[in-house]
Amino acid sequence: MNKETTALWQDIERIRAEAPLVHNITNYVVMNSTANTLLAIGASPVMAHAVEEVEEMVALASALVLNIGTLSTPWIEAMVKAGRAAKKKGIPVVLDPVGSGATRMRTDAALRLLDEVKPTIVRGNASEIASLAGAQAGTKGVESTLSSEGVAEFAQVLSWKRACVVVISGATDIIAGGSAIARVKNGDPMMPRVTGMGCAATALIGAFAAVNSSPFRAAAHAMALMGIAGEIAAEKAAGPGSFQVRFLDALYGIKKADIAKRLKMRVGK
Amino acid sequence: MNKETTALWQDIERIRAEAPLVHNITNYVVMNSTANTLLAIGASPVMAHAVEEVEEMVALASALVLNIGTLSTPWIEAMVKAGRAAKKKGIPVVLDPVGSGATRMRTDAALRLLDEVKPTIVRGNASEIASLAGAQAGTKGVESTLSSEGVAEFAQVLSWKRACVVVISGATDIIAGGSAIARVKNGDPMMPRVTGMGCAATALIGAFAAVNSSPFRAAAHAMALMGIAGEIAAEKAAGPGSFQVRFLDALYGIKKADIAKRLKMRVGK
Amino acid sequence: MNKETTALWQDIERIRAEAPLVHNITNYVVMNSTANTLLAIGASPVMAHAVEEVEEMVALASALVLNIGTLSTPWIEAMVKAGRAAKKKGIPVVLDPVGSGATRMRTDAALRLLDEVKPTIVRGNASEIASLAGAQAGTKGVESTLSSEGVAEFAQVLSWKRACVVVISGATDIIAGGSAIARVKNGDPMMPRVTGMGCAATALIGAFAAVNSSPFRAAAHAMALMGIAGEIAAEKAAGPGSFQVRFLDALYGIKKADIAKRLKMRVGK
Repeated sequence: MNKETTALWQDIERIRAEAPLVHNITNYVVMNSTANTLLAIGASPVMAHAVEEVEEMVALASALVLNIGTLSTPWIEAMVKAGRAAKKKGIPVVLDPVGSGATRMRTDAALRLLDEVKPTIVRGNASEIASLAGAQAGTKGVESTLSSEGVAEFAQVLSWKRACVVVISGATDIIAGGSAIARVKNGDPMMPRVTGMGCAATALIGAFAAVNSSPFRAAAHAMALMGIAGEIAAEKAAGPGSFQVRFLDALYGIKKADIAKRLKMRVGK
Repeated sequence: MNKETTALWQDIERIRAEAPLVHNITNYVVMNSTANTLLAIGASPVMAHAVEEVEEMVALASALVLNIGTLSTPWIEAMVKAGRAAKKKGIPVVLDPVGSGATRMRTDAALRLLDEVKPTIVRGNASEIASLAGAQAGTKGVESTLSSEGVAEFAQVLSWKRACVVVISGATDIIAGGSAIARVKNGDPMMPRVTGMGCAATALIGAFAAVNSSPFRAAAHAMALMGIAGEIAAEKAAGPGSFQVRFLDALYGIKKADIAKRLKMRVGK
Repeated sequence: MNKETTALWQDIERIRAEAPLVHNITNYVVMNSTANTLLAIGASPVMAHAVEEVEEMVALASALVLNIGTLSTPWIEAMVKAGRAAKKKGIPVVLDPVGSGATRMRTDAALRLLDEVKPTIVRGNASEIASLAGAQAGTKGVESTLSSEGVAEFAQVLSWKRACVVVISGATDIIAGGSAIARVKNGDPMMPRVTGMGCAATALIGAFAAVNSSPFRAAAHAMALMGIAGEIAAEKAAGPGSFQVRFLDALYGIKKADIAKRLKMRVGK
């Protein structure tokens, strides 16, 4: 067993033992699949978005996940309020800026959350992270035109500017935390054919950050687990329907040996 | 075949024959799985939450299910309006006080619905029911610290205070209706690993209450069916993903012989 | 291979090649399953309902799907705004008038969308379409009392009155476009036992209309694909749970030979 396998497995064991409460303010499309992903790994999900109750719910939680996938104004206010309470309490806040760069409302909401909440970790795809990393990034356009190194640069720029860990999901996942960078090559091409896999990754990062005091490690471990469970699920899946079923089963049944055998994570500078 | 098996089976046959319309004002996380649960047993689900239309929808329905799992203020108003219309019309109203006790907003909403709607049946977990049963209960804290008999007491206290049937889900489900009490020991540990199984139970209670004039019987039958379908689903499930699939299949294909073989319901005082 | 098979297959190949962005403003119950249906066939779904961003999202989209299944006032405004932007841009708009005829709010919203947006295609069940086709239709009551020819008449009346393609889902699907009419006899009785299959059909129509300039052909092809995937899924399904899984797998894996073997589409006057 190498060191990374042991470290990842330790997090999973802690999640299973402690069942950390992960408070999600997330989008309508993925609420069910996000809750089931968190339950499958052993965490305890709760969804609550009313501005009247988010602070109280944060007070019970071990991590907060903010996802702007189906945004409307009252939800942004609730996210800001919950996010501030979480930071004040000292629990990790994970932001998923779904669609940032696609509409002004989403870009503005993501930027406002960066400004006012200062999330611990941000996870998105290359275009979403590019839209938040600043002007030069914006002009490079969409995901597919970016080289793997170009993508890594966006993650690092945003990480430095915002003093947070930044994750870009893709065939190779990039995790940037200041000068440290990790690359995870686990995963399967079936994953983008199922809605909410990115959102599930963000929620898993929340669960890992609840038990691992290093947001950088937590994010890398969560992305590796996503990819490994995706590989196991894809092996016998006939399509995206059976893939989803097997993905939850794989998360639930994951063993240390699965990780030892499959983990493709490289941590460097 | 014992008497309880025959009575439960009779309800299932009526649901399948009549396809009662169950109007749900429920939370975003479980809307899809709740609708599919109702369809699998043969009922006809509808979701409608706009204050402008809930009374009209209630007029078409045979049961109303109110679930506060992802609450916001306009939804509470719609629940009160729909609940009053349902009571006036004389159809059963089932309340699921999700998260009551966790935040003031949820406890207040649940109490307001108890006051203003007077639901026919309330189903929750031990902490939710405890939060509604009164002061002494509150101080006993959370679910895990409660003995099975302590739990039963909360159900009975709330049943007496509010003149409704009260169900507490757990390894042993408690159904309290005045001085009558039923215990259902069916179920499987996989069930709490899937989101919305409690909400599905509440919706099933609605379907049973639509065809059985005894709310106490209806609630006990629905809980027993949940547990039995859960046992069948768990038998060949590799995890919570395949469990969900098999659960819907089990509800759809349930036979009288399955109930006769598995039913663990005890009705007493 | 007959001509219809080739034409349908050509649309599927274009969807898979172009991955058209389908913007959905749809109901909470089916958001997840709709997104997964679109992904399974190769389209690219996005859900966005905030009045502040719908026009910008439409600007990126190749089709717009409006579905009133869990309506509230702000969503109607967003649908009107998005619909107008889509028509101005010249992309197809597909309306699913869920529950039209059941409550005044839904009937009014559907009529308003017909008036102000002028959708390209409308898809519903017989009662929903009847409620929109005018007075005589309304008095004939609900779906089950209608003969197949009565149903076809409603579709044609609405098609003429509103200058749009009208689809009525049922054991035989009717597609009416002016004087042209198509009938699709594919499908399986398991389909109505799963929530959101009608909504999935509407979304698929959006994907087909994004790549086929004939709304009539697009609608007929989408309905035929739904039915064929449903037949394949039902073959080995043990119930509605496994049916759903296999349905997505079937859409994903559909082959030209499956269509050639199963297609039951008749186009006439």
